Amino acid sequence: MDKIEVAVLGATGMIGQRFVQLLEDHPYFKIKGLYASERSEGKRLAEMLKLKDFTFKKETLEMVVEQIDVDKIAKDVRLAFSGLPSDIAKEYEASLASRGVAVFSNAASHRMRDDVPLLIPEVNPDHLALIEKQQTYRNGGFIVTNPNCSTTGLALPLKAIDDAFGIDLVIVSTYQAVSGAGYPGVPSLDILGNIIPFIKNEEEKMESETLKLLGKLTDRGVKFADFEVLANCARVPVIDGHLESVTLKLKTDPTLEEFKNALEKFTSEAQRLNLPTVPRVPIIVRAEMDRPQPLMDVYAGEPQRARGMAVTVGRIRKKNNYYKMFVLSHNTIRGGAGGSVSNAELAYAKKMLFC
Amino acid sequence: MDKIEVAVLGATGMIGQRFVQLLEDHPYFKIKGLYASERSEGKRLAEMLKLKDFTFKKETLEMVVEQIDVDKIAKDVRLAFSGLPSDIAKEYEASLASRGVAVFSNAASHRMRDDVPLLIPEVNPDHLALIEKQQTYRNGGFIVTNPNCSTTGLALPLKAIDDAFGIDLVIVSTYQAVSGAGYPGVPSLDILGNIIPFIKNEEEKMESETLKLLGKLTDRGVKFADFEVLANCARVPVIDGHLESVTLKLKTDPTLEEFKNALEKFTSEAQRLNLPTVPRVPIIVRAEMDRPQPLMDVYAGEPQRARGMAVTVGRIRKKNNYYKMFVLSHNTIRGGAGGSVSNAELAYAKKMLFC
Amino acid sequence: MDKIEVAVLGATGMIGQRFVQLLEDHPYFKIKGLYASERSEGKRLAEMLKLKDFTFKKETLEMVVEQIDVDKIAKDVRLAFSGLPSDIAKEYEASLASRGVAVFSNAASHRMRDDVPLLIPEVNPDHLALIEKQQTYRNGGFIVTNPNCSTTGLALPLKAIDDAFGIDLVIVSTYQAVSGAGYPGVPSLDILGNIIPFIKNEEEKMESETLKLLGKLTDRGVKFADFEVLANCARVPVIDGHLESVTLKLKTDPTLEEFKNALEKFTSEAQRLNLPTVPRVPIIVRAEMDRPQPLMDVYAGEPQRARGMAVTVGRIRKKNNYYKMFVLSHNTIRGGAGGSVSNAELAYAKKMLFC
Amino acid sequence: MDKIEVAVLGATGMIGQRFVQLLEDHPYFKIKGLYASERSEGKRLAEMLKLKDFTFKKETLEMVVEQIDVDKIAKDVRLAFSGLPSDIAKEYEASLASRGVAVFSNAASHRMRDDVPLLIPEVNPDHLALIEKQQTYRNGGFIVTNPNCSTTGLALPLKAIDDAFGIDLVIVSTYQAVSGAGYPGVPSLDILGNIIPFIKNEEEKMESETLKLLGKLTDRGVKFADFEVLANCARVPVIDGHLESVTLKLKTDPTLEEFKNALEKFTSEAQRLNLPTVPRVPIIVRAEMDRPQPLMDVYAGEPQRARGMAVTVGRIRKKNNYYKMFVLSHNTIRGGAGGSVSNAELAYAKKMLFC
Repeated sequence: MDKIEVAVLGATGMIGQRFVQLLEDHPYFKIKGLYASERSEGKRLAEMLKLKDFTFKKETLEMVVEQIDVDKIAKDVRLAFSGLPSDIAKEYEASLASRGVAVFSNAASHRMRDDVPLLIPEVNPDHLALIEKQQTYRNGGFIVTNPNCSTTGLALPLKAIDDAFGIDLVIVSTYQAVSGAGYPGVPSLDILGNIIPFIKNEEEKMESETLKLLGKLTDRGVKFADFEVLANCARVPVIDGHLESVTLKLKTDPTLEEFKNALEKFTSEAQRLNLPTVPRVPIIVRAEMDRPQPLMDVYAGEPQRARGMAVTVGRIRKKNNYYKMFVLSHNTIRGGAGGSVSNAELAYAKKMLFC
Repeated sequence: MDKIEVAVLGATGMIGQRFVQLLEDHPYFKIKGLYASERSEGKRLAEMLKLKDFTFKKETLEMVVEQIDVDKIAKDVRLAFSGLPSDIAKEYEASLASRGVAVFSNAASHRMRDDVPLLIPEVNPDHLALIEKQQTYRNGGFIVTNPNCSTTGLALPLKAIDDAFGIDLVIVSTYQAVSGAGYPGVPSLDILGNIIPFIKNEEEKMESETLKLLGKLTDRGVKFADFEVLANCARVPVIDGHLESVTLKLKTDPTLEEFKNALEKFTSEAQRLNLPTVPRVPIIVRAEMDRPQPLMDVYAGEPQRARGMAVTVGRIRKKNNYYKMFVLSHNTIRGGAGGSVSNAELAYAKKMLFC
Repeated sequence: MDKIEVAVLGATGMIGQRFVQLLEDHPYFKIKGLYASERSEGKRLAEMLKLKDFTFKKETLEMVVEQIDVDKIAKDVRLAFSGLPSDIAKEYEASLASRGVAVFSNAASHRMRDDVPLLIPEVNPDHLALIEKQQTYRNGGFIVTNPNCSTTGLALPLKAIDDAFGIDLVIVSTYQAVSGAGYPGVPSLDILGNIIPFIKNEEEKMESETLKLLGKLTDRGVKFADFEVLANCARVPVIDGHLESVTLKLKTDPTLEEFKNALEKFTSEAQRLNLPTVPRVPIIVRAEMDRPQPLMDVYAGEPQRARGMAVTVGRIRKKNNYYKMFVLSHNTIRGGAGGSVSNAELAYAKKMLFC
Repeated sequence: MDKIEVAVLGATGMIGQRFVQLLEDHPYFKIKGLYASERSEGKRLAEMLKLKDFTFKKETLEMVVEQIDVDKIAKDVRLAFSGLPSDIAKEYEASLASRGVAVFSNAASHRMRDDVPLLIPEVNPDHLALIEKQQTYRNGGFIVTNPNCSTTGLALPLKAIDDAFGIDLVIVSTYQAVSGAGYPGVPSLDILGNIIPFIKNEEEKMESETLKLLGKLTDRGVKFADFEVLANCARVPVIDGHLESVTLKLKTDPTLEEFKNALEKFTSEAQRLNLPTVPRVPIIVRAEMDRPQPLMDVYAGEPQRARGMAVTVGRIRKKNNYYKMFVLSHNTIRGGAGGSVSNAELAYAKKMLFC
């Protein structure tokens, strides 16, 4: 069968280039064009590399970036991945969708809209059905979003726990890598040997997106989960990998062993569908006393195509009726481009693309 | 009046050398001797410097370290500061105290004993009275301890808040500097560009010490505070300065403004006594959206002698009935040697030394 | 005597703020106004702090930045310190000088001009005489420049050695701090756990500026020194302090002891004039086997006002007829604002300002 | 054909574990046993992992470390790889060789001995013949050493240049990663945000080993190369990858193009023999203005088995009759275990093992 040709929007940025990485030799998708702002028009990918840990193929390096032109894109492809910055994503993505394009976006602009799925394949695959509403007024096009990078790593283990035990209260503190701020992003003078206890809008996103993700799809849209989420976000001098300390109060009282099992054995429709960029084991529980660590666990996930897509959980503890753990995920793969690629794979596998 | 001659135990380590730094030209105390294990016997301080941000006076650099000999020390001085590692601190400190020496210690060994004050001058100065029990069976000697480095920075703002509003629940996640592990401490291979979500016994110390510090002195000893403390501790690639994210549930419902005021206006007997190593303003509240930061706030505290002794609080937020903030303190000054030096100053000012 | 009122150009940047730091309470100079581009017009210094290791006085923090207007500045002050970026420095500095203002600049724009002194008080104080040529066509105004940050730390020890032994060949490799690139400067993604072996134009500047600095003032201008300088420049993950490895071939064959002495005993007119921002001992020779180090030696220099103005040299070695050493200097103090402040002090002390 | 069973000595350390990594699924060799000091006796590899960037296979993780017993080892295997620390390597390696074992060692102890090859397959494969002398008095056993980590990255490009143009003078300054000091190695307190301009014995090793490597094998042993090498060594906060700035004076006067070509086209017997751990292109020349960089180039080398075995050269410049470049190599792969593994492959391919 022929692969679906796709556009990558924002191909000059960190997330855009992670899209390109994940789409090289993808079994379903094939990059047709790279798009970015006027400034980068005509430049080859090789001239504006942002990823230090990945080497593109020669032919990929020679791809030339074009200026975004929604009419042209809508004529060329029926699916677009967007790594655009939120400020410009809003309009471009809506325009593309209205021209019938399926847009899978990492941008925050449309995440909280009623009829836009905020989607993680393992967490709320049924929310994908929301696109039907969009398609009615968007000529068959739609927008699907992946959550904020720090939300993703949290929501996946929370889903496993909420299903098993019911969540009452979530308190999370983050240790977020600098790649989360894009490039050039965080100045080295601000972060070398330092911690910055502030990331704009990040706590608000974590607190609201988590509840939409774990919400229930009803006839009238998503009914948000009703537990409390309290977030404290900080930037740390780490390249890739958001670590989070999570303290939980549950509605029931599982043993530590039951708690671990719920995480470790968690699986979902995404695993059953064998989506290519989704790891066989989505939540890896480490028994060592000092894991997860960004340098050791950031690329977790098997098979090879799902590297960086598993969430690693460790240091699971219980004190009175509270549970504590650390979670780690790759912020620009699982929490970025990989999120949207796996969302598109879900739509593809569920035959919700172009049918 | 003559200064009191003191011994510094553990003078080859990070904390020991912070003691030496703080005791140079101290108005009450004067270093009589430096002590450490046999291995360092006969070495000059200049040969084993551990602090990169402080330059000792020439005469201090020439001081020679002696092997610990409790009989000799007890003959030479009546007051000792201990920066010994916990494993050897236990016996040495007890021996010295039993020989009539007043021991002010940074070690964990005796902190949780019933008759040993776990002391912060601004938090629980009245607990100092516990030494009287010790003096009865220790020939007038006693041990006073300062809390663990990460506990100190937390307990000071909690005291202000508990006094004003009553605390119900404390959830804290730490971003702890490598100097907290001493020297050589954390290998660079483990922490460069990485976070380690584990520090041995640290969470247990924070959870128990905080309750003793904020406990009430009764006839039968300290009645621990009864709120819940849940700690998640992690090491970050920062030289000095423990940052902590703190989420609180209170017994009352102050406005954000009232909450800030309680911190900002907090003062204590230690300030009234004008202790030299205690800052005029013990809790500094920053209004900027991205403070406190280790590189910018770690040396907070005035006057000059109290540099690194103030705790900086920032990003105070309220959500529903929860309060959130970040706190920062210098882990080897306020959370280490400075803690014990100010404790000794308190004892001195309250005339509880040698009278 | 009244202090001379001065303007600080580029007050929103790293170097500009080092100027402000060094001019607080300066015995000769007093800040009259802070200037920067239109974008910062009306902002208080407190809103755009760039230095994490220095706390300005309250009244300084309240100073408001004005947009650069050469006519206004020339009316208000007769002396200006410039921390402007090179691209805009060229014209503004020339315009100010033509309006009779004495401009002491850190920018590269005018450094290599025949009649502009490239000046280090300890190295070539006589070059200051070049300003007389400028004054004839600039209405009494002139420009004096300090060298590039990495040149300064090199030229000072080279001066001592060239005077004593004659230099034949200099090979230098640099380990340059990120503050040398200004703010925001080097993205953290590029430098965390990494080295960048390239700094634009840096090697060219080191190779040419050094020869002008150590050149001889003749009737026809500066006759450049005639030895060879070969530079390799790299950026390292350090906040402040340029370290340099220097390998030398000399014209004579001093013993290691003679070589050390030449450095250690070096003094100059600047010391004899007792300039306030010039250290009593300009070159500090360390005997330890592992010094100088940025974290330990970057602030070298006494008295207090000259902190960060001494150059530290260590690991002096000789092999056959080659000499090797490491040198360190503070790149934004000695190699930046402090360079120009001390140049202005020299002009002041030599009565070459406004007479 | 059956694989040769080998022992890995020092399997608890950084280099020892790189040996294990490179020997997993090796086409010629198969690990028979892991050996280390008494302290680690009985521990599984999984309990003492030192590499954060490599995941061993499950069966490898379960391998149990035995205490070194030369008699047992000599009975079990005929080939041993040694990642032992130099102090204990000397005797163990000699004892094993005397029992007929072929020892391929990363330790410095025997490198400069007359009859011990100091070997890089691409540089001096003929030096391997020196083992014949050893075999006469060592019962057929022998020791072959790889050079010091910082020497290796230098010697390979120097070989290409010396062959083509003749070298007169080499001045090198290093930017060495912390993994070069082993584990625990460099304390984080010493290197976070800092540079240490000293590595014990490193400059001496670079200066002498380079000349042996590029020396000529004669009847009377290796006649050392006769150019001058001057080294300045410094430690930087980088995990893996030694960067070096190299300034050269040659005996001839090639153009920059000729100089680049000599590096880029360099190939050797090792490539012709198609050794598995030797890269197809041993010296990679980068045209970008800011390469090589540790984070981007440390794993250079193809095919997969030769990852981290290529040396990357960049920023090639010429000034007058001097040539400048930066070189980078992986210090624990190419400059450590990979060096000895490729040496053993050379011996195997040349049929000098056990025949």
